[in-house]
Amino acid sequence: MLGPGVWASVRQGLSKGLSRNVRGWASGVGRKVDISGTYPALTTPFTATSEIDYGKLEENLHKLGTFPFRGFVVQGSTGEFPFLTSTERLEVVSRIRQIIPKDKLLIAGSGCESTQTTVEMTLSMAQVGADAVIVVTPCYYRGRMSSAALIHHYTKVADLSPIPVVLYSVPANTGLDLPVDAVVTLSHHPNIVGMKDSGGDITRIGLIIHKTRKQDFKVLAGSVGFLLASYAVGAVGNIGGLANVLGAQVCQLERLCLTGQWEAAQELQHRLIEPNTAVTKRFGIPGLKKTMDWFGYYGGPCRAPLQELSPAEEEALRVDFSSNGWL
Amino acid sequence: MLGPGVWASVRQGLSKGLSRNVRGWASGVGRKVDISGTYPALTTPFTATSEIDYGKLEENLHKLGTFPFRGFVVQGSTGEFPFLTSTERLEVVSRIRQIIPKDKLLIAGSGCESTQTTVEMTLSMAQVGADAVIVVTPCYYRGRMSSAALIHHYTKVADLSPIPVVLYSVPANTGLDLPVDAVVTLSHHPNIVGMKDSGGDITRIGLIIHKTRKQDFKVLAGSVGFLLASYAVGAVGNIGGLANVLGAQVCQLERLCLTGQWEAAQELQHRLIEPNTAVTKRFGIPGLKKTMDWFGYYGGPCRAPLQELSPAEEEALRVDFSSNGWL
Amino acid sequence: MLGPGVWASVRQGLSKGLSRNVRGWASGVGRKVDISGTYPALTTPFTATSEIDYGKLEENLHKLGTFPFRGFVVQGSTGEFPFLTSTERLEVVSRIRQIIPKDKLLIAGSGCESTQTTVEMTLSMAQVGADAVIVVTPCYYRGRMSSAALIHHYTKVADLSPIPVVLYSVPANTGLDLPVDAVVTLSHHPNIVGMKDSGGDITRIGLIIHKTRKQDFKVLAGSVGFLLASYAVGAVGNIGGLANVLGAQVCQLERLCLTGQWEAAQELQHRLIEPNTAVTKRFGIPGLKKTMDWFGYYGGPCRAPLQELSPAEEEALRVDFSSNGWL
Amino acid sequence: MLGPGVWASVRQGLSKGLSRNVRGWASGVGRKVDISGTYPALTTPFTATSEIDYGKLEENLHKLGTFPFRGFVVQGSTGEFPFLTSTERLEVVSRIRQIIPKDKLLIAGSGCESTQTTVEMTLSMAQVGADAVIVVTPCYYRGRMSSAALIHHYTKVADLSPIPVVLYSVPANTGLDLPVDAVVTLSHHPNIVGMKDSGGDITRIGLIIHKTRKQDFKVLAGSVGFLLASYAVGAVGNIGGLANVLGAQVCQLERLCLTGQWEAAQELQHRLIEPNTAVTKRFGIPGLKKTMDWFGYYGGPCRAPLQELSPAEEEALRVDFSSNGWL
Repeated sequence: MLGPGVWASVRQGLSKGLSRNVRGWASGVGRKVDISGTYPALTTPFTATSEIDYGKLEENLHKLGTFPFRGFVVQGSTGEFPFLTSTERLEVVSRIRQIIPKDKLLIAGSGCESTQTTVEMTLSMAQVGADAVIVVTPCYYRGRMSSAALIHHYTKVADLSPIPVVLYSVPANTGLDLPVDAVVTLSHHPNIVGMKDSGGDITRIGLIIHKTRKQDFKVLAGSVGFLLASYAVGAVGNIGGLANVLGAQVCQLERLCLTGQWEAAQELQHRLIEPNTAVTKRFGIPGLKKTMDWFGYYGGPCRAPLQELSPAEEEALRVDFSSNGWL
Repeated sequence: MLGPGVWASVRQGLSKGLSRNVRGWASGVGRKVDISGTYPALTTPFTATSEIDYGKLEENLHKLGTFPFRGFVVQGSTGEFPFLTSTERLEVVSRIRQIIPKDKLLIAGSGCESTQTTVEMTLSMAQVGADAVIVVTPCYYRGRMSSAALIHHYTKVADLSPIPVVLYSVPANTGLDLPVDAVVTLSHHPNIVGMKDSGGDITRIGLIIHKTRKQDFKVLAGSVGFLLASYAVGAVGNIGGLANVLGAQVCQLERLCLTGQWEAAQELQHRLIEPNTAVTKRFGIPGLKKTMDWFGYYGGPCRAPLQELSPAEEEALRVDFSSNGWL
Repeated sequence: MLGPGVWASVRQGLSKGLSRNVRGWASGVGRKVDISGTYPALTTPFTATSEIDYGKLEENLHKLGTFPFRGFVVQGSTGEFPFLTSTERLEVVSRIRQIIPKDKLLIAGSGCESTQTTVEMTLSMAQVGADAVIVVTPCYYRGRMSSAALIHHYTKVADLSPIPVVLYSVPANTGLDLPVDAVVTLSHHPNIVGMKDSGGDITRIGLIIHKTRKQDFKVLAGSVGFLLASYAVGAVGNIGGLANVLGAQVCQLERLCLTGQWEAAQELQHRLIEPNTAVTKRFGIPGLKKTMDWFGYYGGPCRAPLQELSPAEEEALRVDFSSNGWL
Repeated sequence: MLGPGVWASVRQGLSKGLSRNVRGWASGVGRKVDISGTYPALTTPFTATSEIDYGKLEENLHKLGTFPFRGFVVQGSTGEFPFLTSTERLEVVSRIRQIIPKDKLLIAGSGCESTQTTVEMTLSMAQVGADAVIVVTPCYYRGRMSSAALIHHYTKVADLSPIPVVLYSVPANTGLDLPVDAVVTLSHHPNIVGMKDSGGDITRIGLIIHKTRKQDFKVLAGSVGFLLASYAVGAVGNIGGLANVLGAQVCQLERLCLTGQWEAAQELQHRLIEPNTAVTKRFGIPGLKKTMDWFGYYGGPCRAPLQELSPAEEEALRVDFSSNGWL
């Protein structure tokens, strides 16, 4: 187990110019990992008393291990990362690293509001075994988060990170879209390997792919609802909560896209839209966790202030799955 | 030329129960026209003194006639319809009907704020030769435009229209998305044949196609920016302003989609995103008309309050086309 | 009664350079009318078959005539003007002019989407007896409605109008706020006498008053919900739908503000917020008309696509009035 | 100085049922502090290397101590709290408590995303000397932050807090308005003493005051831009960044309001709108800190990702103050 001391020492190191050494650790900068593929955005299982349930986490991972995922995203929005302490964030990643095979990419969310804290968390995530970090846009001061500010933020993080950085734009949570011009600029950074776009504006996604086509920069759909459309315009991966419950289907949808079986892909995509919306913007993480319980995984409670679904919500959630043939 | 008298007589007719006869005119209800295909959303050319320039309209149509369009959409948002009098709206459609070949579909915008006026305009459009009408959502009282209100509106129009009705959702102009549940309900109406969705939310577009799949209901992309993605999820047509200047390319993009040449489609789609955005949400109709002037069509001025582009805007517009190899 | 011929002749006149003469009619330009005071934004009564019910209109006006209003606003958003034909719009104003006393200001909505049509409607409104016009921002092409475009629009209208012009910003309906800098520029026009702001952003209202303080330019609250606050920051009038049902109370609230009885004003204002919200953004014109029926006026039906309230909505509307002691 | 150990021990305490004892510390619950009055929302001064500059903090406080403020708000949005570690948050409050007189209220921001962490931070803030806490709405999962979820969150915090709780709604930062019905419910809690509303919707503010009038619940304007209007509808306090630079003027504005000198208040209010907007939504904290440098306080740099103003922004900021006679 990893104590708070590790994190503190990383912080001390940072202020002493650790960054040069840090790069040395993993010779990360310059080594571009190919992040193409399908990833579940993992939930964080809690006990009835809101402690992290590492046993259930391991059980879930063993079940998910049967699908051909490229890896796992830990502490994306689905992971309730804003409710975890720094220590918990690192401990979860550390545990997962020990559970999953070496060839599965472990992409860990390391975004915080301040640049410095994001750098520190990024370094720590590398230390506990993450293969890459995914960094959400800071957003509390969104009125001042210009392209210049965001370019500065991500450049700093990528400069100092020993492992590759994935940009993460999720306007439903942040109220902020990472501007296209900022993405294009950042795509030239040797340690920025791609982006997760959860906004779902397919015109924007296509444009980003077009304008970064000369860089080694991968765009991943941030939700299964627009997976097919994203692949059609050039995306090469996807990260979403739905893969926690319909992992086989999401992997199959990707395979149909990659092998050009667009008709079959279309039919499958159609049947996944409502379930996907149900476990994201309609019912959120409480909806996803409830569904996990139905599908043989451990969902369990969320941390407050997230609330359980009401009976009426639960019924509507069930219909979103059953009417599409999944329950 | 068509005078105001025609419109007035249509109005009188309506109040006398004309609807039954009107249906008789074209035996429209029940006859489902297949609206699949590519359509330019025509601009309305004006002289320097803001009169409609029918000569230029004809010249434009002759040039556009060389491309394999399924037809033409007249008085969509691109046609500045809110700036035309009722008489002008009908006269433009009447003239176009006389110019274009019979086998080209003429879809005329007949949307007004009130249900009654929309019905009247629809009847008049049928009388002057439209093959179908496209009806924008009423929007001034958007706070009260519930699904129920919109279902009532479109049902009334479709009940009374002698020609097929196309739904039209364009939130950038109306501040209103036609709700999915309303679309699904309306897709069962025998005289509603499809929908133009200009919002570009590809998840929503996919869901609409999925939930109307058992009806004879066609979904058309409302802008070229998301044409490929829309076809990938099941759209079968597109209507947009860009086809006024890059008609060959838009038709080619559709053909690539329909024949499953997704890689070539993707490359072409990418190069059309910025030009399309430039002539729609970035620079609007003044941008499109300026581009038409560049491409050998007549663009000319817009009616006020739409203003000409500034020199800086014009330069940016040019870059959006030249950087993608179109100028 | 006024036929469509009048309007047509006004249009002809305009194209022949009528504007100079038009100014002569009323010697409007330069004569600044003081629009301070309270105005109901009148509804348009319809029969069960959706015809305008002029008899009920007259009855309503006689009842409203017992309150110390400064005048009446006809065909603001409350008047369902987008559902009236041009002929109806003028006829309603003409009738009201004949009913109300000469010393009551009649401010008529003349806004249309195009500048030219707005000018024509403005001239016609003057001809049928309006004392001033209130001109809503054109909004269908809101993406291009820059300050420059709006300044051009209003300047043209004010240049040609024989009667004073009132600016009208109502973002709930138009999705557009008339920008502060545009208001400031327009406040210098000799024929623009003030503004109705229905957005309710009190910081913005205060700023507009501050920056136009050296002009003869009056700012009127566009809703009773923020009447007191608006007067506190310098507004001198108000226009709203609530005065159709609680006319005495709205006049009293204004009087309390003008005489510095802020505590009593505050208490009265508080009790009017929920009723005001109920007849505007919560239940709209159908809510206002229903309430008029309760309060001894004629409300009646709205034109489609506006729908009647559901029983549940009607009950909630009633509570908004009864819980504040008005029913 | 306060080390991380304190915070850790508080956390341990919590899990051992400390809450009962904690209440004992300050006998907070049930004792309603009157929070009426003017408060600057303090900035956090940083050195050139981004360390907290406690010396400058003390200097600023001594200068601010000359104005008749009711107290100080620490770690509102203006304090860059999302960029501070937990240890820093507590240390800043602890230092300020030692600097300012006992009779000045110290209201400390203790909001975090999770309920549990907010409770812990609240307990710690009490321990280091805060008189009350101000708790921002959690917002990352705003799609699930229903009234029920927010009521649950605040009730838990208020139940366990040894000191009074102030609700804090700031949609510009959170994308979330604390719903009126939630505020009304929470106003009955014996340990919730009021609310800071930074949204500025004066109709809403008036309604909240009206519906909580029977509770001992104070509403404070969350920005100086709508201070006068808020007092006019019944607010009794204000918290804002502008008081860091124009402290005398903000206190004077409040006094004018409280003594019924509305004309003088209006004139002063008008001259404060643009400066206030400049240091909040227009140029944010970087704008406020720059202005502090001009006015004899220490502003200094912000933590990244917040960026310094560009020269053009700085010039515009200066005009916002000079054109209103403050520079």
